[in-house]
Amino acid sequence: MPSTALRVGEPLELEDFELALSHARSHIYTRTEQVALADLDGWYRDSYTGYWHHRSGRFFSIEGVRFRTDRGPISEWCQPIVNQPETGILGLLISRRAGVTYCLMQLKAEPGNRGGIQLSPTVQATRSNYTGVHGGSAVPYLEHFRDAPAARVLADVRQSEQGAWFLRKRNRNMIVLADDLVPAQEGFVWLSTGQLLRLLSRPDLVNMDTRTVLSLLPMAAAALREGADGLRAAESTMENWEEALADACAGGASRHSDRELRHWITDVRARTAAVTTAAPMRALTGWRHGDGSIRHETRAFFEVIGVRVEAAGREVGQWCQPMLATREDGIVAFLVTRIGGVPHVLLQLRTEPGLTDVAELAPTVQCTPGNYEFLPSAARPPFLDDVLNAPSGAIRFDTTLSDEGGRFYRISNRHLIVETGNAGEYPGFRWASVRQLIGLLRHSNYLNIQTRSLVACLYSLLATSAEGSRT
Amino acid sequence: MPSTALRVGEPLELEDFELALSHARSHIYTRTEQVALADLDGWYRDSYTGYWHHRSGRFFSIEGVRFRTDRGPISEWCQPIVNQPETGILGLLISRRAGVTYCLMQLKAEPGNRGGIQLSPTVQATRSNYTGVHGGSAVPYLEHFRDAPAARVLADVRQSEQGAWFLRKRNRNMIVLADDLVPAQEGFVWLSTGQLLRLLSRPDLVNMDTRTVLSLLPMAAAALREGADGLRAAESTMENWEEALADACAGGASRHSDRELRHWITDVRARTAAVTTAAPMRALTGWRHGDGSIRHETRAFFEVIGVRVEAAGREVGQWCQPMLATREDGIVAFLVTRIGGVPHVLLQLRTEPGLTDVAELAPTVQCTPGNYEFLPSAARPPFLDDVLNAPSGAIRFDTTLSDEGGRFYRISNRHLIVETGNAGEYPGFRWASVRQLIGLLRHSNYLNIQTRSLVACLYSLLATSAEGSRT
Repeated sequence: MPSTALRVGEPLELEDFELALSHARSHIYTRTEQVALADLDGWYRDSYTGYWHHRSGRFFSIEGVRFRTDRGPISEWCQPIVNQPETGILGLLISRRAGVTYCLMQLKAEPGNRGGIQLSPTVQATRSNYTGVHGGSAVPYLEHFRDAPAARVLADVRQSEQGAWFLRKRNRNMIVLADDLVPAQEGFVWLSTGQLLRLLSRPDLVNMDTRTVLSLLPMAAAALREGADGLRAAESTMENWEEALADACAGGASRHSDRELRHWITDVRARTAAVTTAAPMRALTGWRHGDGSIRHETRAFFEVIGVRVEAAGREVGQWCQPMLATREDGIVAFLVTRIGGVPHVLLQLRTEPGLTDVAELAPTVQCTPGNYEFLPSAARPPFLDDVLNAPSGAIRFDTTLSDEGGRFYRISNRHLIVETGNAGEYPGFRWASVRQLIGLLRHSNYLNIQTRSLVACLYSLLATSAEGSRT
Repeated sequence: MPSTALRVGEPLELEDFELALSHARSHIYTRTEQVALADLDGWYRDSYTGYWHHRSGRFFSIEGVRFRTDRGPISEWCQPIVNQPETGILGLLISRRAGVTYCLMQLKAEPGNRGGIQLSPTVQATRSNYTGVHGGSAVPYLEHFRDAPAARVLADVRQSEQGAWFLRKRNRNMIVLADDLVPAQEGFVWLSTGQLLRLLSRPDLVNMDTRTVLSLLPMAAAALREGADGLRAAESTMENWEEALADACAGGASRHSDRELRHWITDVRARTAAVTTAAPMRALTGWRHGDGSIRHETRAFFEVIGVRVEAAGREVGQWCQPMLATREDGIVAFLVTRIGGVPHVLLQLRTEPGLTDVAELAPTVQCTPGNYEFLPSAARPPFLDDVLNAPSGAIRFDTTLSDEGGRFYRISNRHLIVETGNAGEYPGFRWASVRQLIGLLRHSNYLNIQTRSLVACLYSLLATSAEGSRT
């Protein structure tokens, strides 16, 4: 009985997970209907600024900014932006049994999700959620994160969200160790970390919030292995995924020392002018805003639409909200190579209007190709053609994965990891080793969300390649 | 001949330094005269906001903010604040000769300096300085920092300035290795790192900018020792100060793991509400602003005054500017102890209106005692009486050191390091080991400027104690 499988506290085999997933899809879902912004219950447009706010003053608002920078081919533009100043929690509860690390995943149907249900972290809560402003029920398992003893907090770091769309939004990414596999409530399943990493290659299944938290996995594994702070002693055998990540970090030196990499980041951040100022909606050059939606006159970039949501299996049955939509999927891609046997990734520093600190490390390629029809040809990103035209043998990972479905309406990015034999140096780019990425992830605002998402895919790739090479 | 000593490129013995210093005081100086803000040439008050700006639009401005927080005993206040959005460079040029590391120090007379000349880093340049807006001559040695090959940049990190007085100001702290002891121009001297650390115990001599850069000294030493990036191989013997710092970092574990310490910081930053909003000068409750100065009605906290400056031995002979002044010196203090033989410092997390990221690590005590006459008694800082009444044998460091004399008019803080045998746990405080502090200093915005200043004093203390114990 699938419904039993869903309720039971035990970890699921992958085939039972498929049953659980299709069962869940039948009773956890959202139905969305696009409506005019002016018809969103509970929302209003400020008559002076033209910004859209919720009447409670909470949740988020749609505002406008003007951005000026001396970095990159476009030196100035205007755009709408989502302002959600509260720091939410993205929390993953994990537990160990018989040498296996399990993750408690929520089968969650956000209104913007492709495919309905996606795998969300145990807790995905805005501050509004957990202070109860939305009038719904308490967030399950939140107490494991809010009141965790320090020794059980294996990873805890605030990280940025999409700097092109969110104004200085940050979420707290946490991995917390539970004593045991606590019972999985309706709509939650325990999956092994190995399973979860394999599921990353399924289109639009593992959601963005899970991917950013998974980027902290090596930090959590290290904490467990240290048997830190009186937790049970580390086990002597590593799981396959752990061994694969440890292998990737072992061995020779990185191309650039940690110090050189930090110097590069400091240098770009100190030299770059990047000024984001609030602008009223009517002053956003190139943007059309009416009662219906807000969109660019070229229809490029993105659109702010209104959505009426009807949900089953969630805490609240009906609500309205603005969402961001795009006309085509984006591309995020890593060029990867081995330098002296050590896996490296080619990164750039990217300036975006909503970042808190000028620039963050971004994937080799991060773009929406169609937008470049409307931009100067110099704006076309380096390496875009290389990853799009890569020979199939060089493409190590290629999966479309969704942005967060609570704010973004069916927006996905094709996630590509492309191997190259050419570890050359390119102006504005640096090769960073996987070990260095893991080190920087301990701190806020080094890796942007697209990079963290691809880092999770890279872990998946390393873990599954290692398994493949053993059989 | 003292003037010869000053011009010569060779490092100075301490007694020659004294001669050089007194010689320099005779021809490098500023004379300041307090004048009304309205009488400052080149400055004007915006009629709508009441803010003071330079007519060029550059340098800095005096603005107003309202601050609201749910952390600490005072939940809301208004104040004037210095807005200087550009990231300047605080750069220290070092070089090695015969196993000794030398620092190129500038004998600089800032208008707010107590004692006239203080020891400044090689380069102390705002962006206005090095883009030449002030019309003065080029900044000497700036090219060593602006165009340094990555391998020679031993430390490079942006750090915050006083969050109580500056609105999100940051400076880039750099230590760069020169091939050799380049000739010291007039007004510059080469001192050994050991000498410089000893001079920290002289009142108001080593300036704030030097102290914050010196906090990065272990990072630079490590880079040299690694013989990083094709630089000459590390020498086999350590200098005394290096050995002392290495000893302090060696040995047993820290009280809290690095992970726990970061979790504490993330937790406080994520939970704390701290909102700084611009407010016009007339709306700053409790503050009196007129043509003369801006001050609090109690005369506590600080005052914004106007100063006319006449300088000799500097790039520009005369100018006017607003400055901040206080009526009494502040106190910054570390309680230190050994835990399992490993030196630890007791730190708090402090929220200030001008910080870029909610809260930074602050000394055990950071306050201006007189202000508490005007604040609720609950606001009196913990440990203030402990450090003020410490038995003299427990006081390991006690020197009054100045804030930066370009913006602050004769403002100093008494720097105290007090040893305690009691390594207890206190709510809102954590013991961090010296090794952990050095690790966090690789990244922006962990340690506030007062902490970094005291960290430099702690290095001085460790180095001189080690010397003492050897004799």
